[in-house]
Amino acid sequence: MSEKPRFAVLLSGCGVYDGAEIHESVLTLLAIDRQGGRYRCFAPDIPQMHVIDHKTGDPVAGETRNALTEAARIARGEIDDVAVFDPSDFDALILPGGFGAAKNFCTFAVDGPECTVDENIEAVIKSAHAKGLPIGALCISPALIARVLGDVTLTIGSNAGVAEAIGAMGATHKTTTHTEIVVDEAHKLVTSPCYMLDATVSQIADGADNAVRALMGMITKG
Amino acid sequence: MSEKPRFAVLLSGCGVYDGAEIHESVLTLLAIDRQGGRYRCFAPDIPQMHVIDHKTGDPVAGETRNALTEAARIARGEIDDVAVFDPSDFDALILPGGFGAAKNFCTFAVDGPECTVDENIEAVIKSAHAKGLPIGALCISPALIARVLGDVTLTIGSNAGVAEAIGAMGATHKTTTHTEIVVDEAHKLVTSPCYMLDATVSQIADGADNAVRALMGMITKG
Repeated sequence: MSEKPRFAVLLSGCGVYDGAEIHESVLTLLAIDRQGGRYRCFAPDIPQMHVIDHKTGDPVAGETRNALTEAARIARGEIDDVAVFDPSDFDALILPGGFGAAKNFCTFAVDGPECTVDENIEAVIKSAHAKGLPIGALCISPALIARVLGDVTLTIGSNAGVAEAIGAMGATHKTTTHTEIVVDEAHKLVTSPCYMLDATVSQIADGADNAVRALMGMITKG
Repeated sequence: MSEKPRFAVLLSGCGVYDGAEIHESVLTLLAIDRQGGRYRCFAPDIPQMHVIDHKTGDPVAGETRNALTEAARIARGEIDDVAVFDPSDFDALILPGGFGAAKNFCTFAVDGPECTVDENIEAVIKSAHAKGLPIGALCISPALIARVLGDVTLTIGSNAGVAEAIGAMGATHKTTTHTEIVVDEAHKLVTSPCYMLDATVSQIADGADNAVRALMGMITKG
């Protein structure tokens, strides 16, 4: 490779309960930078499903936040609307987790395997996949990938209910524990459970690092 | 030490322009965990000075957010009001940066060296210092420490205007570059510029790691 591998990072807001999980997002960016890649963040310009008070865990009545505007906090303002994503500009796509992936990117948190997917998010995943870009997905994000791509092999850790829903969407779930990854070579998909397990921040860093390393290997192989 | 060193982490919100800088905050937690410590996050239960749209950089008219509620996003809900902070429960105190340290913890962003400090934040810093706890401060947070403790030696990188303001508050500024730390052994203060310089996320991780390592050394020495 003559230039640094280019990663598109898809964020769903800013905060584990209504957006992108912050630790997973930052540690994904760190893993990419540490391993010699560069990144650009993207988020959808849509209202979040809701706003959760992260101190109490309760929804905040009457408050609306935009997923792109909030995700810009994690990206320090360096972020684009997913509507302008072009897979030709990138070598890989990666989705950190957080409930936003199941509440804003799609309706999995509410509708389970019958969920609908935001059309721009679906276009990003499908166009990246069609272009042959390896895709990484952490935490609950693999459920979204199952809904969009169907017959892939992946992990969300060991949650039986979610694993069953993933099976219902046509994908194959493999149980994993902390920092492990599942690599679907045929579909160029790398997944890791991260905070779908009760984990430490170091375990999240290792999980993100392992996922990015596997994606780097797929980029190099072409 | 028979048990893990205990760090109190002081957050000023969630987002570089109106709260705690997210990368610095997460990478501080990671450094503590990686080096065998444990942490508890704290934030003040006060309205932020304002809300900045991190995509555009503009203030959002009419919107109010609470620093504790927003900081809970970084802490995944595991956070306490600074009003309950007791230095007896901790071995060290550390403040990541972000404009919130200069907008919510104190009024430095508006008033410079004549700034006032939130009374609970002042009490946390003074009580930790009086108890002999080493204190770490990243990015712009050292300006707050200068205002509260006065005659200390520290760094915010190489910004001449901020360095001058720090001098006007009675502290001594030392110029540093990426990942470097300034250690004031006499006052048990460790500072590092982090995003006060135009830095990569890996440089922030290294800066936080270096600062936490110096604090760990001070804890061990007692």
